[in-house]
This record gives sequence, C-alpha cells and structure tokens, in this order.
Amino acid sequence: MTAPAYRRLSVDQRRAQLISTALGLFAQRPPEEITLDDVAAAAGVSRPLVYRYFPGGKQQLYEAALRNAADALESCFDEPHTGPLTERLLRVLDRYLAFVEQHDAGFTALLAGGSVAETTRTSAIVDEVRRTAADVILGHLEIAEPRTPLRMAVRTWISAVEAASLIWLDEGREPPREELRDLLVDQFVGQLMVAASRDEQVAGVVEMAVARERPEGPVGELFRRLVPVMGVGSTLL
Amino acid sequence: MTAPAYRRLSVDQRRAQLISTALGLFAQRPPEEITLDDVAAAAGVSRPLVYRYFPGGKQQLYEAALRNAADALESCFDEPHTGPLTERLLRVLDRYLAFVEQHDAGFTALLAGGSVAETTRTSAIVDEVRRTAADVILGHLEIAEPRTPLRMAVRTWISAVEAASLIWLDEGREPPREELRDLLVDQFVGQLMVAASRDEQVAGVVEMAVARERPEGPVGELFRRLVPVMGVGSTLL
Repeated sequence: MTAPAYRRLSVDQRRAQLISTALGLFAQRPPEEITLDDVAAAAGVSRPLVYRYFPGGKQQLYEAALRNAADALESCFDEPHTGPLTERLLRVLDRYLAFVEQHDAGFTALLAGGSVAETTRTSAIVDEVRRTAADVILGHLEIAEPRTPLRMAVRTWISAVEAASLIWLDEGREPPREELRDLLVDQFVGQLMVAASRDEQVAGVVEMAVARERPEGPVGELFRRLVPVMGVGSTLL
Repeated sequence: MTAPAYRRLSVDQRRAQLISTALGLFAQRPPEEITLDDVAAAAGVSRPLVYRYFPGGKQQLYEAALRNAADALESCFDEPHTGPLTERLLRVLDRYLAFVEQHDAGFTALLAGGSVAETTRTSAIVDEVRRTAADVILGHLEIAEPRTPLRMAVRTWISAVEAASLIWLDEGREPPREELRDLLVDQFVGQLMVAASRDEQVAGVVEMAVARERPEGPVGELFRRLVPVMGVGSTLL
C-alpha cells in the first residue's frame, strides 16, 4: 500500500481524515495492534502531525474514532414511523449488519472486551448506543412508559443481536447477511410473543404490531412456520 | 467492621482465604475501587503478606479471584442428564441466579466491561465460561455436531441471560428471582421454536425435548399461554 501524497487540508478536514484512516485500520486489526505510526503512514502524514491533532495519542484517537463510529451506528437506527414494524426493523438491521461487516475487527474488539484501548469512557459510548437502540425500538412500539417485562425483552434482544453479530463475523459471515437479518427479526417477534404471554403491556404491543402486518410479511410467515412446531406440543395442551 | 484476628494458616488455606476475601470485596464494589490494603485489612493480615502470595499485586489477585469465581460458576452448570430438559434448566438457572446475586458488583463490573482490571486474560476466562455453558446445553440437547442455527440460538440465548442478569441487578432485582428464571426458560424455548421453524436440526431437538415434557411443566404452560397470543395473528395465516 503506497501512502497517499501529502495534501493541505483544513483543520476539520484533517481531523476527519485521521479519524477515518484510524477507523479503517481498527476495522482490520484490533486496537492494541495499531500504532500511531501506522495511522500516520496510512494517512500520508508525519507522526508529529497526528500528535498535534490528538495530543492524548492513540487512546484519544481511538476514542474519537469510536465516537465517530457510534454516531454512524446510531444513524443506522433512523427510520420513519410508518408501515409494518417488522419491515422497519428489517431495514434497520440491513443498515446495522452492513455497518458490522464494514467495521469487522474493530467492532469485535470493542464488544468482545478486553482490548487494551477499552476504558470506562469507551464502555460508556457502547452503552449509550445500546440505550439509544432500546429507546428507538420503544419509540416505534409507541410505548412511552415501558415496564420491566417490555424493557427486558427489548434490551435482551439487543444483546442477542450483538452476540449474533460477533458469532457471525467469527464464523466467516455464515449464514448469509439476509438470512441472519430475517432470523433476528423472527427472534424479536418470538421474544415479544413469549413476553406477551406473561405481561399485558407486551400483549398490547403485540396486538397493535400484528394489526399493521401484511399477511405475506415476516410475522405472517413466522406464524405459518410456527404452526407445525406448536403442533408437536399438542399433547401437552 | 473489625478485622479478624490473625491466625496461622497453611499456604493453601491462606491463599484460599485471600481469594475469598477479595471475592467478597469485589462483590460489593467494582475492582478499580478495591486496593490491596482493603484486602489485607479485611483478611486481618499485613499488606506484605498479601504481596507474598500475589507478587503481581491487585491484578494477579483479581485474576485468581476471577478464576475461582469462574470455577464456581461452571459448577452451577452440573446437572444430571435425566428428566424433562426445562426442569434441568430451571435448576441450573436457580443456581446461576443465586451466584449472580451473591457476586453482584463484581459480576456487573466484569461483564459490563471497561473495568481497569479487565485484560485479554480476564476476557478469556469470561469467554471460557460462555463456551462451557454452550457445551453443557448442547450436551443436554444430545447434539454432538450442532450446525450454525442451533449453535447461534444457544449462544445468543446465553448472551440474553447475561444481559438480563445485569439489567436485573441494575433494577434492584426486579422481577423476583423465580420470575426472572421462569422468563429465561420461556425465552429459551421461544428461541428454539423460532429457530426450529427454519432449521431441521433444531426442529428435531424441539421434538425430542417436547416428548419428555410433562403437561404441567414449563413448555406445556408456555404453549397454553401462547395460544391466545398466536390467535391475535390468525388474520395473517
């Protein structure tokens, strides 16, 4: 890889360039294996110049890159409040999984923990993304005051999505992205159904959501596939 | 709190005492807030004596305590391969949640990440516990060669259990422990059902597991509660 020729950039442009270069490197290798020299070389600038922008060195650059990635990730969650809920979720998961694929090693290092670059500040950023994801979902479910069962269903599903993403990267991106996306939507519906069987607020959400689904949509398909699975348990009813 | 009187102990006893004292402190406050002086005082010994056993200082003691906790946690997973699978899972979760309750702050600090005491070594221990949990579950499901859908269902459920445990501690142990345990079993069954609707291997597991359930057991109860929830979607079928 040849270093790009040095170009005059504004302060903001240079900062953005260094962050984007760092993100590219963190996507290929875990943070502990990246040096400031690597970032300087990949950006085609000198090490002192990187230090001028990030006097805190690699840790500061890592945190800036993470902040940037968190903003990009949160922007994946933007989705208009119209149409069947599962179709909205499919679109958000498409963008999310594209992000996971693009950031690969950096995403794994951060969520798997134990990176030397991980601190309470970086954990707070990751936690903020999780909370934002939960708030966005609850917003789409139109519930302003979620009680514990609904909150727990949403938050544990978000953890399951993270875990599934890590396993997916770890296993060479198997199953294909669209299949993983569809499976995650099914798991969301499944978790809500299970929670609905125990809690009135969740049951109300499921009723509202199902009423907006199309028969050929993900919930309809899942329900049709679940009928024989439930049939296996008919002796227990 | 008065320090216990100094007692002569064998090398192994002293080491075990220091680890158990450290675990007690890590359960009350995150690792970064605990000093070796705290451990020495609580154990009723001098700081140099703690250093004689753990020359690597707090980090070494923390890792030894974590190793010890991981062993204790893995022993919660021991369960005979007899009787309905959900009843085995209920017993394992009872022991697991008792462990979570007992280790509180230490459990949260470790899994939430970002603790200053977290390293690739401590992460490897946590990861080992997760892998053991998955292997134990697959053993009970009697599947020697799990394919991706089954492996993913089991591993994402384990992540969901961790997330639920953290939320549970964070929310003042609401819902009550038995309720959380029952909910986690329901979620396990729900995830397997959803995965079974897409994959033959998982469908076989569900069929085998359901055949061993009692009608008044967790699966029977869940299925009866799910009938009206599925009924909401009858217009989609």
